[in-house]
Amino acid sequence: MPLQTGTALGARAIQAASDALKRLLGSRANDSAAVRDHHSHGESYHVHAAPDIVCFPHTTDEVAEIVRISAAHQVPVIPFGAGTSLEGHVNAIHGGITIDLREMNRVLRMSVEDLDATVEAGVTRLQLNKALKNTGLTFPIDPGADCTIGGMAATRASGTTAVRYGTMRENVLGLTVVLADGQIIRTGTRARKSSAGYDLTRLFVGSEGTLGVIVDATVRLHPLPEAVSAAVCAFGTMEGAVETVIATIQLGVPVARIELLDETQMEGVNRYSKTSYAVAPTLFFEFHSDSERHVADQAATVEALATEHGGHRFEWATRLEDRERLWQARHDALYAALALRPGGRPWTTDVCVPISRLAECILETKQDNRDASFPIALVGHAGDGNFHLVYVLDPDRPAELDEARRLNDRMVMRALAMGGTCSGEHGVGYGKIKYLDAEHGPALEVMRTIKRALDPDNRMNPGKMVHID
Amino acid sequence: MPLQTGTALGARAIQAASDALKRLLGSRANDSAAVRDHHSHGESYHVHAAPDIVCFPHTTDEVAEIVRISAAHQVPVIPFGAGTSLEGHVNAIHGGITIDLREMNRVLRMSVEDLDATVEAGVTRLQLNKALKNTGLTFPIDPGADCTIGGMAATRASGTTAVRYGTMRENVLGLTVVLADGQIIRTGTRARKSSAGYDLTRLFVGSEGTLGVIVDATVRLHPLPEAVSAAVCAFGTMEGAVETVIATIQLGVPVARIELLDETQMEGVNRYSKTSYAVAPTLFFEFHSDSERHVADQAATVEALATEHGGHRFEWATRLEDRERLWQARHDALYAALALRPGGRPWTTDVCVPISRLAECILETKQDNRDASFPIALVGHAGDGNFHLVYVLDPDRPAELDEARRLNDRMVMRALAMGGTCSGEHGVGYGKIKYLDAEHGPALEVMRTIKRALDPDNRMNPGKMVHID
Repeated sequence: MPLQTGTALGARAIQAASDALKRLLGSRANDSAAVRDHHSHGESYHVHAAPDIVCFPHTTDEVAEIVRISAAHQVPVIPFGAGTSLEGHVNAIHGGITIDLREMNRVLRMSVEDLDATVEAGVTRLQLNKALKNTGLTFPIDPGADCTIGGMAATRASGTTAVRYGTMRENVLGLTVVLADGQIIRTGTRARKSSAGYDLTRLFVGSEGTLGVIVDATVRLHPLPEAVSAAVCAFGTMEGAVETVIATIQLGVPVARIELLDETQMEGVNRYSKTSYAVAPTLFFEFHSDSERHVADQAATVEALATEHGGHRFEWATRLEDRERLWQARHDALYAALALRPGGRPWTTDVCVPISRLAECILETKQDNRDASFPIALVGHAGDGNFHLVYVLDPDRPAELDEARRLNDRMVMRALAMGGTCSGEHGVGYGKIKYLDAEHGPALEVMRTIKRALDPDNRMNPGKMVHID
Repeated sequence: MPLQTGTALGARAIQAASDALKRLLGSRANDSAAVRDHHSHGESYHVHAAPDIVCFPHTTDEVAEIVRISAAHQVPVIPFGAGTSLEGHVNAIHGGITIDLREMNRVLRMSVEDLDATVEAGVTRLQLNKALKNTGLTFPIDPGADCTIGGMAATRASGTTAVRYGTMRENVLGLTVVLADGQIIRTGTRARKSSAGYDLTRLFVGSEGTLGVIVDATVRLHPLPEAVSAAVCAFGTMEGAVETVIATIQLGVPVARIELLDETQMEGVNRYSKTSYAVAPTLFFEFHSDSERHVADQAATVEALATEHGGHRFEWATRLEDRERLWQARHDALYAALALRPGGRPWTTDVCVPISRLAECILETKQDNRDASFPIALVGHAGDGNFHLVYVLDPDRPAELDEARRLNDRMVMRALAMGGTCSGEHGVGYGKIKYLDAEHGPALEVMRTIKRALDPDNRMNPGKMVHID
């Protein structure tokens, strides 16, 4: 994509801020073209926009000082983690200072008794899980990419295991945040619950850097399940698959993963992962428990439900290597979608609806997409009513981008009309900012009021989440 | 308690507001002494403070109109539910208009497929569960009293089942709220998760009416467990009981209730419930599952852990009637505490700490309390690190109130020093407002900023949660 410089800032303000940042951080304040370019985008289709300078702080105090410099010179601040965001969250659309938190990557503490850990924002989820080895605990939230915990908190991420373990909303106990004026606050405590004060933790979780910079997070950990099994089952119809999901949850089967892939996505999986699954709507299941017998009971219940709703043969994966192969295939869904059109570039979008409307929302969307000029693969966290589309676009045909935009608009409006949300887990960034009015109505003005109160200069990741005049 | 009129408001403003409210609501705007007195307190020891007038709206629009009248005349608004709050939340300490939401008590909708229901704020939890009969679903949050769902949302309530099902934080999907200017907003959607916008739902959950009036709530429902069993086990030491709790959770046993009662509380239970339990630190357990075998497995695991940590004989309660007797004894803990001192009046307080510090916090507190002039019973939601004390005071000895205040101060500071919170589930009201600075430090100023932004006149339940100059 063309590099958009993005900045409408006064050159003198930028220069003064850059000088101050270099005095503070030396070579860890970098305004080379290559570094700025690298920080101009996440993994989305949005137009790249480079910051004026990128900082690599090592401490909370350095982050605070960077933000104070941004305040002194009225220059925007954009937090940056693993760069895996999908709605343009990290693109510096108004220029400014990007704070890359990847060098703040220490696991600060963990407690096996309390099932929690405090990590700096730049720690990734795989890094945390590596640090948890031999503790019997895991951080199960799995959005696919190896995101930073800070980024996951900032976008309220979730993924395949949210149906069982919740999203970042449920799994962040507390945060350290640098506010717009450079002040450092701690939200929450290490207590599992509290009724003492406004829930600032939940306010900052999902705020996408627009209210402050998350510098560390205390997260819940979970016991590694004693027993695990997994299975794949293809269905005659999409409705049958979704009905199986609904019945599973209604019966209280504590399924750990229940993932839906449509026939297009399955075709891609077979191509990319050299598998020979049926090219049909398919559910991938995983069952966890503290008891082997309970995993067997869960699986038997769900197999019976699947059969009742037109499921074909259950393919079991009880051995670790088989389970890993199965979930690798699921994890590679994006590459699998790209395998449908070699040379294609992905646009990924997601919506989330009440589960009772999921089949209807998916079928209407597939009907609406049937004449699209490009392949569209569907994969969903069906237990949450959340699904993703990957539009596989030809980068040389800009008209496809417009077509994708129209299809996406209609899908979002369909989801909202069904009582859903414009994003189940990817977030708003600037890609979905235009839908927030339709989703929230007058509540959007309350969000603006909060934004103005905590960031009166509109300096914290401006142009994301909520438009401020 | 003496009735404190509380109002420092201009008599003309009150009169004008009252006239407008009576025009709006007729006899449902009531300023009789009896009705004002009834609304001057919850169930706590705090000095009663009557509002100037009490309104009983039937619709969201009526609530909005009441709040607009409060705005026009600059008179405070205090929401009121079942009147079961424990930290003076509903006491009209600055006079004003109490909005009693008990006549807004309709279950507006429920969905068995989506496991959710939308209820008006005045619906109580038992009323909701009655409406769920024959659906296979339940609303499991159980703070003891038959609170309204609106009140539970406003105080971020939880109770015995939070260790399994979460608190109101996890179980509210969305709210309708009347803001300080009378505007009506809806927060959240019916989707199970969303990354689209600031989490206003969680901001209003636990805000105790200080940011707006909750008029309805969409809550998560849960499948009724297929299999349930319960047990009681006494321990040689408090440490043994708490270690059993920690080990249970660390092993991933999804215990539904794990309640801790100290020897004083058990003595009260025996007196009040005519039981003959050991007078020793005791755990009450409940196990839920979708599978009978899994309940048996959970129970066997926990029994082994208890034995390992000095637990005596497990007393099983698998039959419904035995379970009900057991949990009735637990539910009656407050009356049981009062049985320790006939004619006594209770002051109930709670703190919550990381579970690794629970035994230490309890033992230090018991040591600190050992010379108290009055009985002190302890009951805790041990799986959450949350425990309650009941100070059983002689109403004719005001010195005991001061003594209780000092003991409470020290317990709260002890909990904070251990990384805990001044209230796990009772809330702040005005009883615990003095601890918020110690708990939150600079984050308290962020709470004040939000309060000022959303309630610039400081008219919404003023004097609660955060002090505003």
